Amino acid sequence: MATPDSPAPLITLTTDFGSRDPYVASMKGVLLSLNPALRIVDISHEIAPQQIVEAGFVLACAFPSFPQGTLHILVVDPGVGTSRRLLLARTENHIFLAPDNGALGIVFEHEPAREVFSITASHYFRKGSGATFDGRDILAPVAAAAAGGTALANFGEPVTDWVPSPLPPCTLEAPGRVRIQVVHVDRFGNIIFNFRENQFTKMAAGANAPSFHLEMAGRSVDHLLRTYGEAPSTDPFALFNSSGYLELAVRNASAARTLSARPGDSALLFL
Amino acid sequence: MATPDSPAPLITLTTDFGSRDPYVASMKGVLLSLNPALRIVDISHEIAPQQIVEAGFVLACAFPSFPQGTLHILVVDPGVGTSRRLLLARTENHIFLAPDNGALGIVFEHEPAREVFSITASHYFRKGSGATFDGRDILAPVAAAAAGGTALANFGEPVTDWVPSPLPPCTLEAPGRVRIQVVHVDRFGNIIFNFRENQFTKMAAGANAPSFHLEMAGRSVDHLLRTYGEAPSTDPFALFNSSGYLELAVRNASAARTLSARPGDSALLFL
Amino acid sequence: MATPDSPAPLITLTTDFGSRDPYVASMKGVLLSLNPALRIVDISHEIAPQQIVEAGFVLACAFPSFPQGTLHILVVDPGVGTSRRLLLARTENHIFLAPDNGALGIVFEHEPAREVFSITASHYFRKGSGATFDGRDILAPVAAAAAGGTALANFGEPVTDWVPSPLPPCTLEAPGRVRIQVVHVDRFGNIIFNFRENQFTKMAAGANAPSFHLEMAGRSVDHLLRTYGEAPSTDPFALFNSSGYLELAVRNASAARTLSARPGDSALLFL
Repeated sequence: MATPDSPAPLITLTTDFGSRDPYVASMKGVLLSLNPALRIVDISHEIAPQQIVEAGFVLACAFPSFPQGTLHILVVDPGVGTSRRLLLARTENHIFLAPDNGALGIVFEHEPAREVFSITASHYFRKGSGATFDGRDILAPVAAAAAGGTALANFGEPVTDWVPSPLPPCTLEAPGRVRIQVVHVDRFGNIIFNFRENQFTKMAAGANAPSFHLEMAGRSVDHLLRTYGEAPSTDPFALFNSSGYLELAVRNASAARTLSARPGDSALLFL
Repeated sequence: MATPDSPAPLITLTTDFGSRDPYVASMKGVLLSLNPALRIVDISHEIAPQQIVEAGFVLACAFPSFPQGTLHILVVDPGVGTSRRLLLARTENHIFLAPDNGALGIVFEHEPAREVFSITASHYFRKGSGATFDGRDILAPVAAAAAGGTALANFGEPVTDWVPSPLPPCTLEAPGRVRIQVVHVDRFGNIIFNFRENQFTKMAAGANAPSFHLEMAGRSVDHLLRTYGEAPSTDPFALFNSSGYLELAVRNASAARTLSARPGDSALLFL
Repeated sequence: MATPDSPAPLITLTTDFGSRDPYVASMKGVLLSLNPALRIVDISHEIAPQQIVEAGFVLACAFPSFPQGTLHILVVDPGVGTSRRLLLARTENHIFLAPDNGALGIVFEHEPAREVFSITASHYFRKGSGATFDGRDILAPVAAAAAGGTALANFGEPVTDWVPSPLPPCTLEAPGRVRIQVVHVDRFGNIIFNFRENQFTKMAAGANAPSFHLEMAGRSVDHLLRTYGEAPSTDPFALFNSSGYLELAVRNASAARTLSARPGDSALLFL
C-alpha cells in the first residue's frame, strides 16, 4: 500500500481489446476492487487483434520510461483458453505479466529476464469466473497482489523455457549487406525496423568507410539524419528513433505510404 | 473525501463522445474541479453515436467488475436539450447517472434498481452553462456531489416509470425454438446475443434431450464450447462469454465477417 | 507535492500521437517517474497528425473546465527537431507547455497569456535522450518540475513574439455580411465555425433587425436554436455550442455529411 515514503503501485496495460468494448474497464474494475490505491496507465489497447509482435514491440518501447517497480500487464492472446501458460516475470527494474506467446521475448531483448514464473496459484484467481477472459479473471488479480508486494514465487513455478521473441533477427547476407524487416508502422507512417543503433554502431565500426545506404521497394535512402526537422527534401530519410530503432520517415508525411511498406516487409542495408 | 479507511470515490464514464473532441476531458475537468480526490475510469467513449443499446450493453458488462459504491455516468443521449429526464439510480452495489432513454434499463436487468430519482435540484448544476452539454453541466457536478456522499434524494424526485430496456426479449416461436437477436459485435468480431446462460440453463432443463443447435444466415452452429481455444476448426462455434451472454466466435478470426452479422440481426436457437 | 490542503498537481495531454503507439505512455512514464503524485488526464491523442488548428481548438474548448493551476501539455509538432522554440506560458488560471507553432495562440484568445517563456534550461531535460521526441525528453520533465512548483522563470527566457493563432479571423465582407470558416467537425458531424457568441451579440446589437441567416454549400440556414432537441425538422440548424462557438447541426445526424463540410470551408453569415 502507498505510504508517504512509497508511492502507490503503478500498473500499465497493453492489450488488443480496443476502446469500444467493456474488456479494458473490466480489468481496471477488478484491479481497483482489489487495491483501491493502484495507479493504472494505459500503454495501448489498439494493438491489432492477436498481433503478438506489435504488442511486444509497443510495450518494449514504452516500459523503459516508467518508474522502477512498475508492473506491466500485456494481453494479446490468440490462445486464450488453451493450455498456453501465463507468465509473471521480473527484469532488473520492472515486473511483467503476459501469456507465454513470445511478446515478453521482445521485452526481454531490452531488459533481460531475471526470474520468470508460470502462474499456477489458482487461489489468487477471480472466484466464479469463466474460462474466456483470463485478463480479468487471472492477470488482474495476480497483478493486484504482485503490485501489492506478494513475492513472485508465490504465484507459480519458476520456468526458463518461455517462448522467445518472434521477431526475425537481421540477416547478414554478405559482408556489409544486412537484410532487415519492418516491425511496426506508427501513426505518422514512420517505418520502424528490427535494427537498433547499437547494432549499427558495431557493424559500422568494422566497415572500411562507414556510410549509410538502404534499399527498399526499388528506392534508395542515403540520408541518415539525427532529427525529423533536418530533412532536406520530401524524400524518405533514415534516423534512429526515440527507442533506438532504425526508422524511415518522410518530412511531415507518411513514409509507409510513399514506400507502400507494411510490417513484415524487408529492406537491404549496406554498410 | 478519501481517508485511510475509505478510498477516494470512483467514477466511471461511458459515452459516445469519441476520443478526438474536447467533450470527455471537459467532464473530467468539472469532476476534478469539484472533487480533486476522485478517481475516474473510462469504460468506453467509442459507443456509436446515439446508440442506446450499445451503451447500455457495454456498461452492463463492465460495471459488475467495479467495487461496491462506484458511480457510473452514461452519456449517450439522442434527446439532449429536450425534456427527457436525467436519472440518478441506486442498485444493490452501484450508483448510476444517465439520461432516461432505456440504457439504464439494460443495466437494471443485471442488477435491479432499488431507488431512482429524476434530477431536478438545479442548484447543483454548473453555473452559467448553456443547454447543449448536460454531461458537463449537470451530470458531472451531480456525480461529484453524489460520489462525495450527498444523499441521492437531495438531487430530485423519486420515480418508478423510467424507460425500460430497448433490448428485444428472446421470442419462443415454438416449443424448443427461440428467436434471439444480435446485441453487439465486439472488436474481435464475436457476435453477442440477447440470451444469457441462466436462460439457457432454465430452457435446457425442460428439454428432452438438451443439446445445442443454432441457425444464422443459412449456417448451422452445433458446437457449444467453454473456451475460444477449444475450437476444433475454423467453423463458427458458440460459447457463453465472460458476461454470461451467448456468443458466436471463430477461432482467431471474425465471426461477424464470416456470418455477415450486425447488431439487430436475428438467429434461431433450438433446444 | 500533494498535502491535505493542496491536491496533487493536475496535468493534461493533447497530442496527435494516437492511441496505438508507445508515445503517449512514454510521456506518462516520465511524468510519473519524476512525480508519482501527479494526476494525468488525457484531453485528446486523436488530433489529426500535425494539425495545429485542431489541437489548439480542442485544448481551447477543454481547458476552461479544469481547476485553477492545471498544467496543459500540447504536442502537435510538424517541426520537431528543428529550431522552433518550446513555450511555457501562464494565463490567469492555467499553465501551458507546447511548441511555438500557433496552437497556444488559439488558447490565448480564450484566456490571454500573462507570461511566456522560451524553454532553454537544459538541465531539466531527460538525460541521454535523442533529438526526436521532445514530448518525452523535454516537455514531460519540464512539466513535472513546473507542476511541482518550480517558478516558470527558471525554465528559460521571457518572450513576447510567440506565433499567433493560425485561425483566420472572420471577414466583414460588406455591412451585415461576414465570411466565417469551419474550424472543426466533431464526432457527431457538427460543424464548428471561428465565430463566437460574443462576436454575434456585438454585431447583432448594431443590426437594424437582428435575425439569423447563414449560407453554406448552396443551402440556407435560418434557425438559430438554443438546443439540439428544439430542431423542428431534419434540416441543418445553428446554435452556439457549449464552448460558445457557432455550430451547424442536424438532429440526430451529421451536418458535415449533409453539407459536405470540412475544416477550412467557409460560409456566409448575414446579420
